[in-house]
Amino acid sequence: MGLDAMLDSVWVLFSAFLVFFMHAGFALVEVGFCQRKNAVIVLTKNLAVISLASILFYLVGFGVMFGDGNAFMGTSLFAPGADGTGAALPTNMPLFVFLFFQMVFAATAATIVSGAVAERVKIGAFMALVVVATAFIYPVVGHWVWGGGFLSTMGFHDFAGSTVVHAVGGAMALAGAMVIGPRLGKYDKDGKAQPLPAHNIPMAALGVLILWLGWFGFNGGSTLSANPEAIGPVILSTNMAASAGFAAALGYVWLQGDHKLDLGMGLNGALAGLVAITAGADVIGPLEAIVVGAVGALVMVEGTRLLDRFKIDDPVGAIPVHFFAGVFGTIAVGLFANGDDKGLLHGGGFGLLGTQALGALAGALFAGAVAAAVWGVAKVTIGVRVDEEHEIHGLDKAECGVDAYDLTPSLPQPPVEAA
Amino acid sequence: MGLDAMLDSVWVLFSAFLVFFMHAGFALVEVGFCQRKNAVIVLTKNLAVISLASILFYLVGFGVMFGDGNAFMGTSLFAPGADGTGAALPTNMPLFVFLFFQMVFAATAATIVSGAVAERVKIGAFMALVVVATAFIYPVVGHWVWGGGFLSTMGFHDFAGSTVVHAVGGAMALAGAMVIGPRLGKYDKDGKAQPLPAHNIPMAALGVLILWLGWFGFNGGSTLSANPEAIGPVILSTNMAASAGFAAALGYVWLQGDHKLDLGMGLNGALAGLVAITAGADVIGPLEAIVVGAVGALVMVEGTRLLDRFKIDDPVGAIPVHFFAGVFGTIAVGLFANGDDKGLLHGGGFGLLGTQALGALAGALFAGAVAAAVWGVAKVTIGVRVDEEHEIHGLDKAECGVDAYDLTPSLPQPPVEAA
Amino acid sequence: MGLDAMLDSVWVLFSAFLVFFMHAGFALVEVGFCQRKNAVIVLTKNLAVISLASILFYLVGFGVMFGDGNAFMGTSLFAPGADGTGAALPTNMPLFVFLFFQMVFAATAATIVSGAVAERVKIGAFMALVVVATAFIYPVVGHWVWGGGFLSTMGFHDFAGSTVVHAVGGAMALAGAMVIGPRLGKYDKDGKAQPLPAHNIPMAALGVLILWLGWFGFNGGSTLSANPEAIGPVILSTNMAASAGFAAALGYVWLQGDHKLDLGMGLNGALAGLVAITAGADVIGPLEAIVVGAVGALVMVEGTRLLDRFKIDDPVGAIPVHFFAGVFGTIAVGLFANGDDKGLLHGGGFGLLGTQALGALAGALFAGAVAAAVWGVAKVTIGVRVDEEHEIHGLDKAECGVDAYDLTPSLPQPPVEAA
Repeated sequence: MGLDAMLDSVWVLFSAFLVFFMHAGFALVEVGFCQRKNAVIVLTKNLAVISLASILFYLVGFGVMFGDGNAFMGTSLFAPGADGTGAALPTNMPLFVFLFFQMVFAATAATIVSGAVAERVKIGAFMALVVVATAFIYPVVGHWVWGGGFLSTMGFHDFAGSTVVHAVGGAMALAGAMVIGPRLGKYDKDGKAQPLPAHNIPMAALGVLILWLGWFGFNGGSTLSANPEAIGPVILSTNMAASAGFAAALGYVWLQGDHKLDLGMGLNGALAGLVAITAGADVIGPLEAIVVGAVGALVMVEGTRLLDRFKIDDPVGAIPVHFFAGVFGTIAVGLFANGDDKGLLHGGGFGLLGTQALGALAGALFAGAVAAAVWGVAKVTIGVRVDEEHEIHGLDKAECGVDAYDLTPSLPQPPVEAA
Repeated sequence: MGLDAMLDSVWVLFSAFLVFFMHAGFALVEVGFCQRKNAVIVLTKNLAVISLASILFYLVGFGVMFGDGNAFMGTSLFAPGADGTGAALPTNMPLFVFLFFQMVFAATAATIVSGAVAERVKIGAFMALVVVATAFIYPVVGHWVWGGGFLSTMGFHDFAGSTVVHAVGGAMALAGAMVIGPRLGKYDKDGKAQPLPAHNIPMAALGVLILWLGWFGFNGGSTLSANPEAIGPVILSTNMAASAGFAAALGYVWLQGDHKLDLGMGLNGALAGLVAITAGADVIGPLEAIVVGAVGALVMVEGTRLLDRFKIDDPVGAIPVHFFAGVFGTIAVGLFANGDDKGLLHGGGFGLLGTQALGALAGALFAGAVAAAVWGVAKVTIGVRVDEEHEIHGLDKAECGVDAYDLTPSLPQPPVEAA
Repeated sequence: MGLDAMLDSVWVLFSAFLVFFMHAGFALVEVGFCQRKNAVIVLTKNLAVISLASILFYLVGFGVMFGDGNAFMGTSLFAPGADGTGAALPTNMPLFVFLFFQMVFAATAATIVSGAVAERVKIGAFMALVVVATAFIYPVVGHWVWGGGFLSTMGFHDFAGSTVVHAVGGAMALAGAMVIGPRLGKYDKDGKAQPLPAHNIPMAALGVLILWLGWFGFNGGSTLSANPEAIGPVILSTNMAASAGFAAALGYVWLQGDHKLDLGMGLNGALAGLVAITAGADVIGPLEAIVVGAVGALVMVEGTRLLDRFKIDDPVGAIPVHFFAGVFGTIAVGLFANGDDKGLLHGGGFGLLGTQALGALAGALFAGAVAAAVWGVAKVTIGVRVDEEHEIHGLDKAECGVDAYDLTPSLPQPPVEAA
């Protein structure tokens, strides 16, 4: 093996570790934004996703995504050995290096769903969705775009997965939130959204910083090569979009409202900026990335409000961050790609903009529809929603038998005086 | 220096940083699983281990482990300069790169002990153990296996340290837990274990995710080379074992008990899976790694119960995770190694399985015996156990003079209604 | 592009990610050491620094630092394209790789200020300082030392920024703390410092561990090359200084006081050791690094006390850690550099020691003076200090409209018995 291929592999492995670390970020964001009484079950779900997704993607998903097959899905390379053959992979690195990088991506798509259905989903139904998502839904859309399937032959461009990972994850989340319904007390009798406040904002902020860091691996590793002339622009644009997303969301809400600094919106703004730049980080320059990140964040803010208007309850904002900003980012490739790159990305018969819109639509529709079927079947069989009493008292007590915290001071504290 | 040697060094440095980060993981797991009143002293101990182990391993331990010497220990290379000579190192990378990688490993072995003796150990006694562990116990066993000592010549195979790091650390921990005795109130008058609940489960879960991440450096860097055809399989098997360990422990307890999802056991299951695969990550394929991880986790669950039966109190489960799963993982090399590799790993006169068992036994016995001597001497001199009153009120107040948290809301909160 | 240049870039990118992660460390340290009632605003400030610094450094700061210009500042390379020309960069890596590494450094200098002015600074004034710091103050001093400016031609040696980043950040912090004044209640009527205790010590400790990790990128990446014979010694000395700094600060306070283990001081000791070794990590060996780290920590401890004597309130100790230890570390190059290196680092007309002192003084004075001007202008225009009532009740309620935590158990807890 040549040194260049070795260096490519080292880069991709390193990137994969950063993407793996994003699972800590996702877990912290979801735990922090949810209520204290559901912290343990949220963590259990998140760890279970990594566990199950890793095993299933190795056994099944990777073959569906990258195996030889047809324009819809691959049908070989299941539970492959290290010398696995049977596919024309888009890289010359060893199979297990490439497979591991793809594995941590697959788990990401599934974990996006977790936040949107948190605090009331039945864990059995959620795990059923995770099984279908990592063995079928995500790999199928991945095959369309990255595995030689029909979108790739149409000229659709999704560099690191605004559609393949984020819109797909977000569409599965939307289907879940709609089938399961809002948390008790989230909407009052007039349909007005009530605050169910975040229980640990520092934890959520740490989660976002970890996700921001991990995204350098998510986007940077998607070059699948250690060529710094390709990686440098990707990383810079990624960072500009996140920065602009934070500032835009924070500023937009500050200007509109009662001049409060809404950190939660700022955090989701950074994430929306990152999601939005993901499709075009390789072809969008740093100045344009500022625009893409900022607009992605505004799409997220307005999308959050839209969901509340339809009484779709998403405790962490997974749907506006991943679905709405993901679709926007996919389309943004057609608007903001560098001139030179735009020529190369002609987009085939529908033009670049049309192909991007079509690809995002296809991915989201497919993911949303199959997920809706899974959630629907679960609803009429094992049930998708926990007992009302469990929801009120918190799932940690009911399903895990423990409290997330025991923070009682060992010695009595002086009483708090009213100010 | 050739580019290939440079790339090897970059890979090992990067891996060493991940292993260093494991110290954050260990600290969070121990803090989270312990009680609030001991959070500060736990952190102080953990930071002190990194600090002391780094200095002592540079001055002494590295020479004991890798210096020229005899089949028992090395006797040169103490406080070496950058051009240090005097040993046939198992690598052509610069001495300080290799030394730094080994340094973060050494600190890991010592920090394993911390959790098992937490909440009642006297810090002086603990630091005495850390000194002996990082300057002598760990490096001696390391010399046997990786420094040209007698186990290496016998054909013993411990890729990244199921025995050298984990069983050794766990055996020192067991000796400590036995000499010091259980926490007050841990066992009732009938000898039944009482819950002393974790005070911050999200923190412990974050710790496990960081450890899981760090293990990619722990095992991946142990290739000591940037050859992706070697690294890829190591990383994949590592991830499969962790995934299977989490699922196995969670599922096993769920099936047996009252259908509660025991996240704490799941987290330790993931760690046990990681410990178990560490000896053979280079020779055990991904499917077999699922088995090794799952069985390692079950060994941990039953080991946890066994310790309680003997009234050996281990607040974080360090002994079942590192000692029991470490011994199992070492032996598992003889059972699950790939056919081709098994031929190469003939294991000398005792056969592979026999040599593996013998090596694990030798390492654990030596570490346990020397540690027991240290704990014993400490018991009759400086004492190993804090005052009863300090233990009841928490060591943070007594030894650090502070509270870990001041979470009193600045304004009075509405009273909590009984449900 | 040759493989060696590719490997250099991969190393620097990877290091840059670690430096980026330091922002999580800074945020956690500041949040943890501050009071609960200001946790959200602290996080908002920290995220805003990353966001604003990234954008401004790309648009302006990078050109001021590395653009062609004069001995004082650069005047080209503003908002450069990927093929940006116009400067003789100290590296042959692609512009955007180098720029991203410098960008995460620039944000670090600005974020140092945040901790010293926390809990009472007006966010508008703080953001004004961040703008000037990242577009002008930091890049100007950076130009002097690393961009071909007058200090570099004098033979001043600041490897990774004890002065450029830390003393500069610390001096801006000192200016802020003096102009804004201490928090209400910090000093009693006799001028005696009162404890305003840390609200979450585990969070602060995690922050320090993340910073320690990030420093391997901060110093390691500053080699700007993947040469392990250069990186190995840098990393080892960095780790030794941090280890010694922790032990020295913890031990020094323990010996002097009432035998309490002051974890807060230990944590800042580790940071001070890291700051101190930063200027000379490339020319100071591991044994000398132990001395530099330990003395840096003692400088920090005494500096902390000195500030209290002058009633300069620094909630997290940013000034003693970054300013005082940074100046000491810069000078320490003249005292502790390896013999061989000392010959190379002749330091020009003032001798090495004189040049180091002069450079540290120049950087700190310039940064402190310009920052004082910014803080002063802010004071008489938009104001630098929040309303007294907001300060008492916490800025989270007043400026963010939320509580950082909602930790009320879902079910009533048994009352705490007095011990």
